[in-house]
Amino acid sequence: MNLADYVIAKATQAKTAAPQLALLPTDVKNAALLAMADALESHEADLLKANQLDLHAAVELSPAAIDRLTLTPKRITEMATGLREVAALPDPVGQVFGMARRPNGMQVGRMRVPIGVIGIIYESRPNVTADAASLCLKSGNAVVLRGGSEAIQSNAAIVKVISEAGGKAGIPEGAITFIENPDRQISVLLLKQDKYIDLIIPRGGEGLMEFVTKESRIPVIKHDKGVCHTYVDASADLEMAESICFNAKVQRPGTCNAMETLLVHEGIAHKFLPPLIARYQEAGVDVRGCPRTAILAPSVTPAKESDWGTEFLDLVLAVRVVKDMNQAMEHIARYGSQHSEAIVTQDDSRSLRFLREVDAAAVFVNASTRLHDGYQFGLGAEIGISTTRIHARGAMGLEELTTSKFIVLGSGQLRE
Amino acid sequence: MNLADYVIAKATQAKTAAPQLALLPTDVKNAALLAMADALESHEADLLKANQLDLHAAVELSPAAIDRLTLTPKRITEMATGLREVAALPDPVGQVFGMARRPNGMQVGRMRVPIGVIGIIYESRPNVTADAASLCLKSGNAVVLRGGSEAIQSNAAIVKVISEAGGKAGIPEGAITFIENPDRQISVLLLKQDKYIDLIIPRGGEGLMEFVTKESRIPVIKHDKGVCHTYVDASADLEMAESICFNAKVQRPGTCNAMETLLVHEGIAHKFLPPLIARYQEAGVDVRGCPRTAILAPSVTPAKESDWGTEFLDLVLAVRVVKDMNQAMEHIARYGSQHSEAIVTQDDSRSLRFLREVDAAAVFVNASTRLHDGYQFGLGAEIGISTTRIHARGAMGLEELTTSKFIVLGSGQLRE
Repeated sequence: MNLADYVIAKATQAKTAAPQLALLPTDVKNAALLAMADALESHEADLLKANQLDLHAAVELSPAAIDRLTLTPKRITEMATGLREVAALPDPVGQVFGMARRPNGMQVGRMRVPIGVIGIIYESRPNVTADAASLCLKSGNAVVLRGGSEAIQSNAAIVKVISEAGGKAGIPEGAITFIENPDRQISVLLLKQDKYIDLIIPRGGEGLMEFVTKESRIPVIKHDKGVCHTYVDASADLEMAESICFNAKVQRPGTCNAMETLLVHEGIAHKFLPPLIARYQEAGVDVRGCPRTAILAPSVTPAKESDWGTEFLDLVLAVRVVKDMNQAMEHIARYGSQHSEAIVTQDDSRSLRFLREVDAAAVFVNASTRLHDGYQFGLGAEIGISTTRIHARGAMGLEELTTSKFIVLGSGQLRE
Repeated sequence: MNLADYVIAKATQAKTAAPQLALLPTDVKNAALLAMADALESHEADLLKANQLDLHAAVELSPAAIDRLTLTPKRITEMATGLREVAALPDPVGQVFGMARRPNGMQVGRMRVPIGVIGIIYESRPNVTADAASLCLKSGNAVVLRGGSEAIQSNAAIVKVISEAGGKAGIPEGAITFIENPDRQISVLLLKQDKYIDLIIPRGGEGLMEFVTKESRIPVIKHDKGVCHTYVDASADLEMAESICFNAKVQRPGTCNAMETLLVHEGIAHKFLPPLIARYQEAGVDVRGCPRTAILAPSVTPAKESDWGTEFLDLVLAVRVVKDMNQAMEHIARYGSQHSEAIVTQDDSRSLRFLREVDAAAVFVNASTRLHDGYQFGLGAEIGISTTRIHARGAMGLEELTTSKFIVLGSGQLRE
């Protein structure tokens, strides 16, 4: 079979499963998710063996990438726990909302329905395979999974285990469609299948985002980078501000919602920055400060222009003293990536203005940007954080994996 | 200036206006819309003169296309009325919804905000220029308008009039950006500007849809064709069914929500079809029937396989007698375009099943598919009917021209 036929066969398989999945009762989906979780745990040895094959082939990867690629018994248990949590979430499919009677007597509302077929193109972490498959299943969507070639054995093993368990529990064939051919041309072909695939979600680095944007004929919801700021206002509770700023940078610096730049009002910088910078440096953070920061804390590295707007994804932080909230908001508008932005202030009019005027997927008052997360926001599990402005912006849960249809209950209404 | 620089200059102009537009107070937007409406009426002579230039150049167009292109005093008044109606609609921007307190005490909700910059690529009707500009303005978006070359003088004149009036009323420059260069390559370049444009809405025929899908790096919401069915069930009130079926086909056959195929349960076909077909034929409808229809009404044209699934956009109707609702739903799934589908029945369990199982942007019980429309559905004005499955499906009003951001009100919450 040539590559084009292979891709169309895979996409057709998912497309064929989609209408059956859309009508699958909630209890069948939940039972399947629980069976899949059990199967992951009972096949631990197979999964670890497959993962070893990937790890042996992974000689050229960085230590961080190898860590992301590695499966352990603990990580397998976490995957299984994730599936059980998805089973416990409410089923969004079939929910009716916004029903209202029109002047001509007909009732119009909307019903939540699956999107159809969702293609996930992702790199490294094999747990994405189980996470994405479970969220798509629960929301009634068929999924086409295209993982990175470096994790192909691990991903294939996970799909085999969950597909078999799901199949026995009544999930139609094709519901979880896996692209096991690592040929790079496959991704290009996959992104042209707008007749079969309704949405593409890429998860990975900038190269992947650029590739998918360029090649896709299918709508794309990106999970792109986060250059997140925290602005500490003159009116901030400085103790609270210190906790928030420390948490936003240090708790897990490699994530898209970690703070990359700290902006501090000049009125409190002299009091606020020296102890915080000392605490950062003790924690191993490379602090890169503007000239005014360097005067207050001479131990910092001088910030270069390129530090503003950089997603370090590491224990590196750029710090700038600003003359007021306007300058902070201008900095955010210029260098931010519209991901997660925070203000620390006790002044209500400033917090309201910040909420209203800052353009980002999530805007925080007096809280750590690290809280931008589907679970923290009450969406249940999340498929990721969308940086696209349409359909779903910010943390995406089960509901964001659905669409709606209008439903109309009439009694003979006509168009005049 | 070369074409690429020209397109980037235009896109930059819109992108620069977007943040100002996003924060524009409702009363400024409304006053601008009313001023634009007045200006259209007071510049009637200029608009008609510009339209004459297009009409003189339009020697190769069909009579229907020339009709769509033609401006009249009545049509100019209708455009102005449309702008006044948009001014009267509630402003979706800034609405806060879904606010809830999380276990850690922070409050999380969402605020409705503009999408940013919306590109509208459209054919023929010059009224789209004013309609689209007004809806984008009211929803706080900058718009880039790319009309068809056949209407370029009319569109340019409309944009000139509304931009001047809007500018005087406080609308930032670039809010309504018009591409006055008719070079076809411009559209290709425009569709690559994902750094500046957040959403593309194409309005036109299949060729335009295919072109935009192929070329765009920007998310696209299509307004594609409608192959709409009405299924008349054995339990239908036949008088109601006849009114609905007649209305759905005849009231305005050239629209995407007009019925193209009628499916009739075999139990009532002998009673229902002959008088309805006679009425259709009196109204000039070319009825194309399946063999069983032809037995009941020998005057029909025999339907060819290609008639099923065709969007006639004309006084042509395909009619098929089906053995039951399952066969009707199979027909719809096979030949429909997931636009607008209707059932006529007095049986509640069948209507509920039809609502749940039929996959379309709007599903109707006992009403004409022609009612699929933003105004009829209570959305106010509409930018069109989306056939894309994400962001907005079916009739799109002002709310569907917005996105949201998460807003978080904390008191020092951290990620543990």
